Amino acid sequence: MTVVMAEAPEHANAESKEAVFAGLDARFGERFSRSEALRTQHANTLTWLKTQPPDAVLFVLTEQEVSETVALCAAARVPVIPFGAGTSLEGHLNAPFGGLSLDLSRMKRVIAVHEGDLDCVVEPGVTRKQLNGHLRDLGLFFPVDPGADATFGGMAATRASGTNAVRYGTMRDAVLGLRAVLADGSVIRTGGRARKSAAGYDLTHLLVGSEGTLGIITELTLKLYGIPETILVGVCPFASVEGACNATIAALQIGLPLARIELADAVQMRACNAYSHLSLPEQPTLFVEFHGTPASAREQIEAFAAIARAEGGEALQWAERQDDRNKLWQARHDAYWAARALKPGAEMLSTDVCVPISELAACVEATRKDIERLGLLAPIVGHVGDGNFHVLPLIDPEDAGEGACVQAFLDRLVERALACGGTCTGEHGVGQGKIGYLAAEHGSALAAMIAIKKALDPLNILNPGKIFAVP
Amino acid sequence: MTVVMAEAPEHANAESKEAVFAGLDARFGERFSRSEALRTQHANTLTWLKTQPPDAVLFVLTEQEVSETVALCAAARVPVIPFGAGTSLEGHLNAPFGGLSLDLSRMKRVIAVHEGDLDCVVEPGVTRKQLNGHLRDLGLFFPVDPGADATFGGMAATRASGTNAVRYGTMRDAVLGLRAVLADGSVIRTGGRARKSAAGYDLTHLLVGSEGTLGIITELTLKLYGIPETILVGVCPFASVEGACNATIAALQIGLPLARIELADAVQMRACNAYSHLSLPEQPTLFVEFHGTPASAREQIEAFAAIARAEGGEALQWAERQDDRNKLWQARHDAYWAARALKPGAEMLSTDVCVPISELAACVEATRKDIERLGLLAPIVGHVGDGNFHVLPLIDPEDAGEGACVQAFLDRLVERALACGGTCTGEHGVGQGKIGYLAAEHGSALAAMIAIKKALDPLNILNPGKIFAVP
Repeated sequence: MTVVMAEAPEHANAESKEAVFAGLDARFGERFSRSEALRTQHANTLTWLKTQPPDAVLFVLTEQEVSETVALCAAARVPVIPFGAGTSLEGHLNAPFGGLSLDLSRMKRVIAVHEGDLDCVVEPGVTRKQLNGHLRDLGLFFPVDPGADATFGGMAATRASGTNAVRYGTMRDAVLGLRAVLADGSVIRTGGRARKSAAGYDLTHLLVGSEGTLGIITELTLKLYGIPETILVGVCPFASVEGACNATIAALQIGLPLARIELADAVQMRACNAYSHLSLPEQPTLFVEFHGTPASAREQIEAFAAIARAEGGEALQWAERQDDRNKLWQARHDAYWAARALKPGAEMLSTDVCVPISELAACVEATRKDIERLGLLAPIVGHVGDGNFHVLPLIDPEDAGEGACVQAFLDRLVERALACGGTCTGEHGVGQGKIGYLAAEHGSALAAMIAIKKALDPLNILNPGKIFAVP
Repeated sequence: MTVVMAEAPEHANAESKEAVFAGLDARFGERFSRSEALRTQHANTLTWLKTQPPDAVLFVLTEQEVSETVALCAAARVPVIPFGAGTSLEGHLNAPFGGLSLDLSRMKRVIAVHEGDLDCVVEPGVTRKQLNGHLRDLGLFFPVDPGADATFGGMAATRASGTNAVRYGTMRDAVLGLRAVLADGSVIRTGGRARKSAAGYDLTHLLVGSEGTLGIITELTLKLYGIPETILVGVCPFASVEGACNATIAALQIGLPLARIELADAVQMRACNAYSHLSLPEQPTLFVEFHGTPASAREQIEAFAAIARAEGGEALQWAERQDDRNKLWQARHDAYWAARALKPGAEMLSTDVCVPISELAACVEATRKDIERLGLLAPIVGHVGDGNFHVLPLIDPEDAGEGACVQAFLDRLVERALACGGTCTGEHGVGQGKIGYLAAEHGSALAAMIAIKKALDPLNILNPGKIFAVP
């Protein structure tokens, strides 16, 4: 199949764009803005990519407003870039062709919670902390936790996950259905509240991970879970990354329902000790969590302790009370900031490869060797139950030589992941930063993706320049 | 979004079709056939829909052969209908526009089993029983069980599930990646062996459930699980369907990891007693199964027993030894044939609605009343943990009046399911039989599905006349 990407969005001239903006200004008043501060803030993401601000920002309140606005923009070919919390990592919110940043963060109603069905319906601007606060008294929670307090619209659009995907899955698994505005302003509903369906194409999963390039999510139906009766947390240092990985594989193989299993390498543990004033062994370390009844959670952690011992794990420390659990998790929770603090003033990149877990130890080790060979400062943390790990190189933004060296390192990292059946991104998405890797990862399937993009957004106005290169 | 379905596949004249068939005959010899018996058998599915045989049947052995054949057929616009085990229920294998039935059942190699990653790679003609036989000695199993010994190509294409979807999910959850031949003969790979990825559009989920209309699956990467250490099975009669449904909801809410939870109504239990020579109470009955360690499985069934009692469940019988478990499951396993035997000579339809489980009791009850009002013989079995139930009306094929009455009953059943957020098909797929319900279920999303179909199969040669009406 040979399909080339849509043209760059060739907007009508500046005049017609101005006419659209004048219309939005008249229609939305203060909620429409062209202020430089707001425009810059809306392209500013946690990334090393260059900021490319949109021409204007609009805060929408309803699906009807999204639909109207997209229809207006489509008529004048003005790009529309959906915006949630601004926590994405790969330049998803940049506006390389200008256009309108459509800020959905004020659409933050929890529309319904169906306790009997363990699901809820939310607007796209609801954040996971907001939802979990709302659910707490009902004894329910939403599990997917990417770290940042992201909006659900953004989390679904980037197919986010995080530390407990090993048990509860990613946004791919958490979304039962969506409402979305398509490129012509029409509104669709995908999926419903039934737990399963075989009725036609799975548009829900097509939109989840499409990064705003196929439609703008205006409502989500999400799966919920009962808050576990008992939560146990353990921390266990290992002699080697390989031992930690093997313990993970063994635990998964016997079907141990790990709620979280996280790896931090020796460099990361050193960073954590320094940042959080701890005195943990500076060795590869697993952080684990078990959810269950008092008896089953206890049984699980005991089974895990035996497995860990067999793989060279030393002295599993564990805790049940929330305060004690928080202490054990602290090093992992602070990992991002601890890594940053290793080299003040440096820029930190976040990589995101994901490989079959049997390949994880070898892939991490080869990466570690590459880091040593280059003399990079680059701690590693990993969602090891999924085979997903983040290498976090700290580089001097003024040093062009180091930048080039790290770029080559990133390319080799992805190459290594793809060679063993993995992916260039486990949970951060493609955005602008990983466009260059998709041809190698997907081969001819990339043409099928582009054919779908062209079918649903023929003018290429929805978040253009993301996922696919534009000629 | 307004998109109309592709034209009926306007093939070139009979002459060019004959040229293609002559080419296939020369190329494939005995594996190509136009015999009437084979053609009829390849359109004969477990359905009340009229058989529409293809013009010819080809047994393929490799992806390369599939690719070549599709390319040839595309050039002459000959429809291609993929065929696995022939166990689908909605006319998926019919050839309303003639064409070639592409039989993939001889592509039955288990290509690889990756024990460390809990995944395997299979050809599309491998059946679930074949795979589970292959895996047994490794202590692994593949969970999705639609009843029939279907092929994985067919199970993925129809997004099949079955009795243990409540714990292990459906084919939507079980497929990590695919290889497929698209409508122009090109081959794509979707997904890989990493447990998660955020790299572009989710073509895996787009193909799963697309019923052969977007591509022909030539390889699947499937998730596997360790065989549980302990399996416990329980059977529990209830005073009412509502009590059984409420017990299910309560068990799900406390996070009880139900491996299976199946409902049979009083009519079905009567059928089971008669067919399998049992003397079970002829009341709504739940069949449950728990997987775990000896201690956790015991804890689970005890928790379930307490919940069942609170909801009017009587005397939960349970068993651990395989023979005893099989005895308890027997009534449920024989349900299909037991239902058929209620009215020898009758045609049995299988309906397949799925609703949010909080709506299940009311939906089943309203359906039960409709059955009584019409005087139909129609037992009900349900995958109650998913909210999916099958009403099985037995009708006299010679009685046109009864046929019309049942058709109206089916329409009301789907209407009732859609009204409470459900779907017309939980696991059987759309095929030809449910095309008429999709506009009501999906509204404007149907146009987006058609746009994707047209983008990937502009000539409408892949399984035309399924999922979408052709004008």
